[in-house]
Amino acid sequence: MSEDVQGTVLVVEDDAELRFVLQAHLHAVGFRVLQASDGAAAVGIAREQVPDVIIMDIGLPVLDGLQATRMLQADPVTAHIPIVILTAAGGKEDVVKGLEAGAQEYLPKPFDIAELLARVRTVHRLAKAHKDLDHLNSQLEAEVRAKTHRLQCLYEFMRDLNYAHTRDEVLDLIVQCVRKTTGAGRISVFLLDVRSERLVCERALGMDASSLSPIPVSELPGVTGKVFQSGKGLAARTLGGVEGGDGYASDEFVSVPLATDDGQGVSGVLNATDKADGKPFREEEIECIRSIAHAGAKALEDILRRTRLQRSVRILLQTLGLLAEYRDDETNRHLERVAQMVRILARRLQQDSPYASCINDEYVEMLVQAAPMHDIGKVGIPDDILTKPDKLTDEEFQIMKTHTEIGRRVLSKALDPELPIPLLEMCVEIAHCHHERFDGRGYPRRIAGKEIPLSARIVALV
Amino acid sequence: MSEDVQGTVLVVEDDAELRFVLQAHLHAVGFRVLQASDGAAAVGIAREQVPDVIIMDIGLPVLDGLQATRMLQADPVTAHIPIVILTAAGGKEDVVKGLEAGAQEYLPKPFDIAELLARVRTVHRLAKAHKDLDHLNSQLEAEVRAKTHRLQCLYEFMRDLNYAHTRDEVLDLIVQCVRKTTGAGRISVFLLDVRSERLVCERALGMDASSLSPIPVSELPGVTGKVFQSGKGLAARTLGGVEGGDGYASDEFVSVPLATDDGQGVSGVLNATDKADGKPFREEEIECIRSIAHAGAKALEDILRRTRLQRSVRILLQTLGLLAEYRDDETNRHLERVAQMVRILARRLQQDSPYASCINDEYVEMLVQAAPMHDIGKVGIPDDILTKPDKLTDEEFQIMKTHTEIGRRVLSKALDPELPIPLLEMCVEIAHCHHERFDGRGYPRRIAGKEIPLSARIVALV
Repeated sequence: MSEDVQGTVLVVEDDAELRFVLQAHLHAVGFRVLQASDGAAAVGIAREQVPDVIIMDIGLPVLDGLQATRMLQADPVTAHIPIVILTAAGGKEDVVKGLEAGAQEYLPKPFDIAELLARVRTVHRLAKAHKDLDHLNSQLEAEVRAKTHRLQCLYEFMRDLNYAHTRDEVLDLIVQCVRKTTGAGRISVFLLDVRSERLVCERALGMDASSLSPIPVSELPGVTGKVFQSGKGLAARTLGGVEGGDGYASDEFVSVPLATDDGQGVSGVLNATDKADGKPFREEEIECIRSIAHAGAKALEDILRRTRLQRSVRILLQTLGLLAEYRDDETNRHLERVAQMVRILARRLQQDSPYASCINDEYVEMLVQAAPMHDIGKVGIPDDILTKPDKLTDEEFQIMKTHTEIGRRVLSKALDPELPIPLLEMCVEIAHCHHERFDGRGYPRRIAGKEIPLSARIVALV
Repeated sequence: MSEDVQGTVLVVEDDAELRFVLQAHLHAVGFRVLQASDGAAAVGIAREQVPDVIIMDIGLPVLDGLQATRMLQADPVTAHIPIVILTAAGGKEDVVKGLEAGAQEYLPKPFDIAELLARVRTVHRLAKAHKDLDHLNSQLEAEVRAKTHRLQCLYEFMRDLNYAHTRDEVLDLIVQCVRKTTGAGRISVFLLDVRSERLVCERALGMDASSLSPIPVSELPGVTGKVFQSGKGLAARTLGGVEGGDGYASDEFVSVPLATDDGQGVSGVLNATDKADGKPFREEEIECIRSIAHAGAKALEDILRRTRLQRSVRILLQTLGLLAEYRDDETNRHLERVAQMVRILARRLQQDSPYASCINDEYVEMLVQAAPMHDIGKVGIPDDILTKPDKLTDEEFQIMKTHTEIGRRVLSKALDPELPIPLLEMCVEIAHCHHERFDGRGYPRRIAGKEIPLSARIVALV
């Protein structure tokens, strides 16, 4: 019976003749047979060779069969081996003791050889089934563990991406997540540098990023270049070893484009190689790397868009300020000085003043951006009044004073009451109220004290 | 023996006296005993009552013990029940056949009662161990499945949040993910409406959102109000049924604040109740809801910030345009008309022209925003020239023409070569080149044809 060919039976019997008979029959049906003539030897052999079944006589020298059975049951190495005990005719008590010591089966001597073989086969088959099941179970468990681990890492990656504020943070998250989910030992991220038109290695793990030279977009040699150009991922195995250049130690690697699906094009390439287990990347690991590249590309793009928007706002505010100045007499650095002084004042108020609780870092930043807008309304004042070297007449001064109303009107016209934008609302406050005075003798509304917005009060001091 | 008290043994024996003896002994040590006097009855009883152990005689009427053993082994309901066969003295062949039919054990008649009980106990114990293990395994598996499912949903939620562009998309994702991960049947999301200072139910599942009245921030009654005010989550069980108001059918609910950790305060409240399984929320489900609320709050905040930034840019560009107009003669709606005409022209070019490939939706949007900036440089032109009703002298016209250079200079001064911002670069192009002519007879640089940026060529037509 071929299924039993590799089964091993340990025969423990002090009667050499009987041992020989047992050995011969078991061997004839395909079992490998080990032999022991006493209990102590049996325990030693069982521990060393771990047979599939043990046939154990009860009456043995050195260590009897019951003691040997108990010892084998107590040892985790041998506890799973089924034991068939042999009992002298009429030795009913031995049977009971043997079963209670942990034996699975018993055979009364003299035994029928057909029955013996049937018994051995049954216990062997049962033990094998359990062993297979255990093996399968632990395999499944390991797979579930690996899958759960990957999923947990991916989940944390996606969550942390939501909180990443800078390109560096995103690159770190990408590299760490690839390492955690695939065990890749070498990982690199190339990003397109628009100005120099080259792919530059911006992050590497397991190798020196600076050793990887930038790749000119006009040439795009190698795998990274191919992947960038085609926008298609590549999981490859270089047959017959590695050719120089990329410096990978293993010949298994995955290279995927950093690209968002919404047609924004490829912004870079993510490479991974040198798995800790030395095996090729599995389908699910490749899928994982693709997900990381995809979400990473989206996060990088979002950060770029946000940075551009923030800069746009800052630049446009500066520009508005500059335009107001353009027709005025002030020197060029006036607005910068205003911003600097506003920052110093606000920081002091933030640290120690009755206003400390209203002023946080964000407020200071807004104030610095909004302050240069204070005189924006001067755009609406005629040249002859704005640039008049002499003192203004009362009438001219009345016109001059309207620059605060003009400033308010121009900006607030564009504001949407449904979506308050604190920064622009502050610009309006400042443009409108920076000539009010704490004693109520300012303009245009002659409001006093805390009626004047804090932002305008700070700017009025500058 | 208390561990056996609930064990049930089916005794299959046609000899009524022997059956009684077996029953009596088994009962005495704590087994519940079922009886059958033939194989067919045994199979029926076993299928119906599923005993823990079967003691089976071989020679039986109607259906013999071997056939009955095979049938029991073949039926998934009874296949796991260990069978101890009883054989007549010397019936060695029956033993072999019985074991091969699937019996675990055999006892030769006449049997020793101590041995019988030992055998029954052993097989029962083994079977019980396997059953417990199987049960544990399937419990573990179910837990792993539930955990993996939750994790998968959370992963997908976090991934999709990265792609959500609107508040509505985020709210949908929040509600769907809470439902998928916890099985909650009723879910609601309240968001703070800054203008009305009320918590408004913006999304609901399993109930009518409009039936949930807005909650004034000044009062904040009920659980939602408490959670909003304290910023602390609440998992609760109303003892003794539900009080009206919230309209929950179940008395188990979880209510968590929508808050990001970085001190931006609470923006709303997420409520969940009515689990499909009717059980209280488990620790890991509550944790899940907290994660969803947290990431959801972050996404909503990001969208609000992004929207504010986008609007700020649009408003500032409009304002810049308005300022340029302020001193000019044009009517108030001029800039709006320019934007409208630019949009119509660009759309036509996008649909069918040699430029179709350069013009996508984003380009059109940028163009519409940038176009009103074309005359921004006029801020630098003296009033007497800008508003002169008569024809300008040559000298005055030379000054007038500088508005294109002024426009370019003012904006490009603020641009950062490290971070190209397409929108602002287009503004510079338009301000600088909108008086160039395709035939090269324009100003300031007298460039011609495709040398003139496409954006400026389109605006020049308006």
